[in-house]
Amino acid sequence: MDAVNPEATTTDVTTSVHQLADRARRASRILKRANRDWKDRALAAMAARIDENRSMILRANEQDLASGRANGTSEALLDRLKLDGPRIDGLIAALHELAGLPDPVGRVVRGETLPNGLRMRQVNVPLGVIGTIYEARPNVTVDIAGLALKSGNAVLLRGGSAALNSNQALVAVIRDALESVSLPRDIVISVDEFGRAGADAMMGARGKIDVLIPRGGRELIQRVVTTAKVPVIETGEGNVHIFLDASADEEMAVDILLNAKTHRPSVCNTVETLLVHKDAAAAPAVLQALSAAGVRLHTDDRAAALVPQLQTIPAGEEDWGNEYLDLDIAVKVVDGMDQALEHIRAYSTGHTEAIVTSSLAASEQFVAEIDSAAVIVNASTRFTDGGQLGLGAEVGISTQKMHARGPMGLAELTTTKWIVQGDGHIRK
Amino acid sequence: MDAVNPEATTTDVTTSVHQLADRARRASRILKRANRDWKDRALAAMAARIDENRSMILRANEQDLASGRANGTSEALLDRLKLDGPRIDGLIAALHELAGLPDPVGRVVRGETLPNGLRMRQVNVPLGVIGTIYEARPNVTVDIAGLALKSGNAVLLRGGSAALNSNQALVAVIRDALESVSLPRDIVISVDEFGRAGADAMMGARGKIDVLIPRGGRELIQRVVTTAKVPVIETGEGNVHIFLDASADEEMAVDILLNAKTHRPSVCNTVETLLVHKDAAAAPAVLQALSAAGVRLHTDDRAAALVPQLQTIPAGEEDWGNEYLDLDIAVKVVDGMDQALEHIRAYSTGHTEAIVTSSLAASEQFVAEIDSAAVIVNASTRFTDGGQLGLGAEVGISTQKMHARGPMGLAELTTTKWIVQGDGHIRK
Repeated sequence: MDAVNPEATTTDVTTSVHQLADRARRASRILKRANRDWKDRALAAMAARIDENRSMILRANEQDLASGRANGTSEALLDRLKLDGPRIDGLIAALHELAGLPDPVGRVVRGETLPNGLRMRQVNVPLGVIGTIYEARPNVTVDIAGLALKSGNAVLLRGGSAALNSNQALVAVIRDALESVSLPRDIVISVDEFGRAGADAMMGARGKIDVLIPRGGRELIQRVVTTAKVPVIETGEGNVHIFLDASADEEMAVDILLNAKTHRPSVCNTVETLLVHKDAAAAPAVLQALSAAGVRLHTDDRAAALVPQLQTIPAGEEDWGNEYLDLDIAVKVVDGMDQALEHIRAYSTGHTEAIVTSSLAASEQFVAEIDSAAVIVNASTRFTDGGQLGLGAEVGISTQKMHARGPMGLAELTTTKWIVQGDGHIRK
Repeated sequence: MDAVNPEATTTDVTTSVHQLADRARRASRILKRANRDWKDRALAAMAARIDENRSMILRANEQDLASGRANGTSEALLDRLKLDGPRIDGLIAALHELAGLPDPVGRVVRGETLPNGLRMRQVNVPLGVIGTIYEARPNVTVDIAGLALKSGNAVLLRGGSAALNSNQALVAVIRDALESVSLPRDIVISVDEFGRAGADAMMGARGKIDVLIPRGGRELIQRVVTTAKVPVIETGEGNVHIFLDASADEEMAVDILLNAKTHRPSVCNTVETLLVHKDAAAAPAVLQALSAAGVRLHTDDRAAALVPQLQTIPAGEEDWGNEYLDLDIAVKVVDGMDQALEHIRAYSTGHTEAIVTSSLAASEQFVAEIDSAAVIVNASTRFTDGGQLGLGAEVGISTQKMHARGPMGLAELTTTKWIVQGDGHIRK
């Protein structure tokens, strides 16, 4: 990798990034020929090299942390940036886990022999070149490199500049690992040296990058989604609702709400708004249990009246659209299913919505009407997760409708190809 | 529909088109509840109303044709614009055929009971609101309205202004038909009254339109693909190659090339470039047969030398990238498979490539290396077609890798939803 060149014009950067994408394309053609065994050996080599180079990686990470502290970066961001022994163990374990998963490439999606004798089949093949734009989390570097490799794709990485040294160290180690199993180094290429202009060049690289997957906060994802000319898979934002129906069982409702809100509040499948049917007998117990677990209740007037003994925070318009990602929940009383559905339609990000109910009719209506990636009946929203749903490794949770919706596994990093075989068939 | 308001500002148009998209969304929610029988009755009603209103439709079309002639529109464009008895018969037949196809909605893509007892299934559901931007072919109006309806989607239509009267007549008839079977008229909405600004507003309607499908020539598709903020499915462009391998059987090669070039030269799956292995004994016979069938041969020097007795046109760089869509073919001699693959990688639009060969190794290498929607061995490229491959009705041929690749049937107008059912399951 060349050093950063602050004099580079945007055109220079575009040309350079496109050249790197072409190198990734050539590498992807060689990778396409690698069978599962070969790819799994590459993943094992990546894991081994990361293990061997811990001190170098941690030193680079320490440089980033020091710059971050000097720049007054918040503790929360520093924590996301930080690598340590256990986190590196986690990266290594994830690579080994990936090696244990089946190869998504070469699977026959459908196939048949047509009446005229033509044999046709539709087969999963790699997308080609994936681009990722992400924030200062060096774990994403390893994560995406592994997922891309296993699905037969080359990848162009643009990580947050706050993690520049960590990412450079990790990418160097990964490229050495690829070379050690006779795969091209260019399967994994960083464009970090070009800063933000590199991200812009990736977003414009139509025909050179097959798909962009932004990973990070709302602002980053929205910028990529609205700017990119390359197809994007939108992931992550989850303004998740639970509707407590009139007939909900109290114990079940308490268990589900506590789990959905407190199990891991900072992730996208945590519940953010509780809609309470006005006749739901379970409601006071649920609100008390949440409050007792340290959850701040942001309530409308009717919800506050359900628990007069509790201190609640009056909810305003901004609460209904807020993804708290913390021990906060918005609570609103609705007159019935229709009002609940209307509220969800207005504020949902299309990630996950759940209902707690004993009514078959209510569960069926909810499942039919909700237009989100996942609809859950009588279970925690935390189950919207590739690992939990049996997909193996997870690329992210897609909140869009095209290509992939909901938890994305390795198969979602592939496309298909029709293969048609004849014996001189012509069309009549 | 209101009349065209030439004074309308872009902001007004954007607001109006977004309001129409919201109306389509509400209609799509009602359509989502309609079962297959109901949708098929709507298709039959559309067919019946078009039949009953032939003279009104033809009158409107005659107005468009008269304006076109007055504006000096080319004969080819006027022919695409023209409706007549047989063409209206074709529209009616297509709607009946659509009614005969299975419903893509509600199909379980995958499903299982997880070890913890959670039941999960992934089910096909409509996308919601589809937008189409197309050129002056009034048949697309009926075609897309039918496909959208059968797949449970509402649709916003922006047709070419040269077909304004024809489209208004057809849309009015279709909306009456919807109402006659108690479905909302707003399942099919035209934004033609807003002219080009209406198309722009559609392209920016993120969150209001779920997918845009442009139908038309290269320029239109490229404008939509590079401008739209709404996800787009790119269709149609086919710079299709056939590689005549050294071992190709002469009779088979002649049959396939004649079929692929002359069966219907104006469509996207017709062959445009023939790559000839330098040792292909079949080559002279193939070139002679094409020439005898009236095909103009655009040859490089080595290809011209294969048929010294024929008049050929010297091929230049522009020929390799040209989608002739006519009785023309570019012909190049290559030293072998690698050079053929390299040429295809440089010029292919990713639609279809075929090989004619007797060699198993050559066919396998070609299938593995070609990165196009369809790869064909020893058959005509004309088989890249939804009807031929058994998909039923065809929305178009996708040349992109995301969501759908190759011939798109009704299933490609759906997305999926995960439905998870528990009995109070929480995540440990």
